Amino acid sequence: MNPGFIEHIGIAVKSLEQAIPLYEKLLGLKCYAIEEVLDQKVKTAFFKLGQTKIELIEPIDVTSPIAKFIEKRGEGLHHIAFAVDGLEHKLSEAESQGVSLIDKKPRKGAEGLDIAFLHPSSTMGVLMEFCEKKE
Amino acid sequence: MNPGFIEHIGIAVKSLEQAIPLYEKLLGLKCYAIEEVLDQKVKTAFFKLGQTKIELIEPIDVTSPIAKFIEKRGEGLHHIAFAVDGLEHKLSEAESQGVSLIDKKPRKGAEGLDIAFLHPSSTMGVLMEFCEKKE
Repeated sequence: MNPGFIEHIGIAVKSLEQAIPLYEKLLGLKCYAIEEVLDQKVKTAFFKLGQTKIELIEPIDVTSPIAKFIEKRGEGLHHIAFAVDGLEHKLSEAESQGVSLIDKKPRKGAEGLDIAFLHPSSTMGVLMEFCEKKE
Repeated sequence: MNPGFIEHIGIAVKSLEQAIPLYEKLLGLKCYAIEEVLDQKVKTAFFKLGQTKIELIEPIDVTSPIAKFIEKRGEGLHHIAFAVDGLEHKLSEAESQGVSLIDKKPRKGAEGLDIAFLHPSSTMGVLMEFCEKKE
C-alpha cells in the first residue's frame, strides 16, 4: 500500500481572517479557495504548495471537533492527509494491520474528496486522513 | 517569497523501533535513512512520499527539545519544513514581516540541510522550519 503523496496538511486556527494574510505573506502564495464543511462545522482556506495543500481550518461552532482541538491543545498542526487510490480497500487494509479507524467508511470532505480518518491512538499520536479524488 | 514545496513533516515519537515498522506498513514505504542529530539530541528516520519526506524524531536524551515536546503534548505532529531558496534572505524577510525567529541564522540539520525555525507564537501555533539544500 502506497499513498502516493501528501494531499494536504490541516492546521487548526481560531480565525481565518487573521490566519489567511499571515500565511499568504509567509508562503508567498494566494489562498485559492474558502469552503465551509458543514458536517464538521468548519470553514477552510486552501493554499497549494507543490503537490501538497495547506488547509487552514476555523471552527464555526463551539461543538466542532476543531473547536475542541483548539480548546485542548491550542492552534496548530491538526492532521496530515495522504492521497490514496482505492480508499475503501486502504481502510480495510489499515484495519487488518491493527489500526483503529475513526471513519470505517469514506465520507465527503472539502474539495469534493472522499475522506476517512484513522485514529491517532494507532498512529503515534498523529491524526491521519486518507483521501481520494473520484472524477 | 515562495518556499516552493514542503520538504518534510516532523513527527515526534517515543521510539523509532516501534514507529518505523508502523509507518512502513501504513505508508507502504521503506525507511531510507536513520540519522542522529546530536545538536538536537535526537535520532531521525526518513521516508519519502512524493516531494515530501516524513521525518520521525526520537529524543535520545531527556534534555532534547523533542523529549520536552512529548512530555508536554504527547507524540504527534511536531513541525512542517518548507524548502526555500536563499535561506538567510527568507529569514530576514519573515522577521521584517513581524515573525519571531527561533534561529536568526541558519544552522545544520539532518540530511546536510541548512535549517532555521520560526517561532510558533508568530505562526498560529505551528512550528515552521525553512530549509535549503546547498550543493
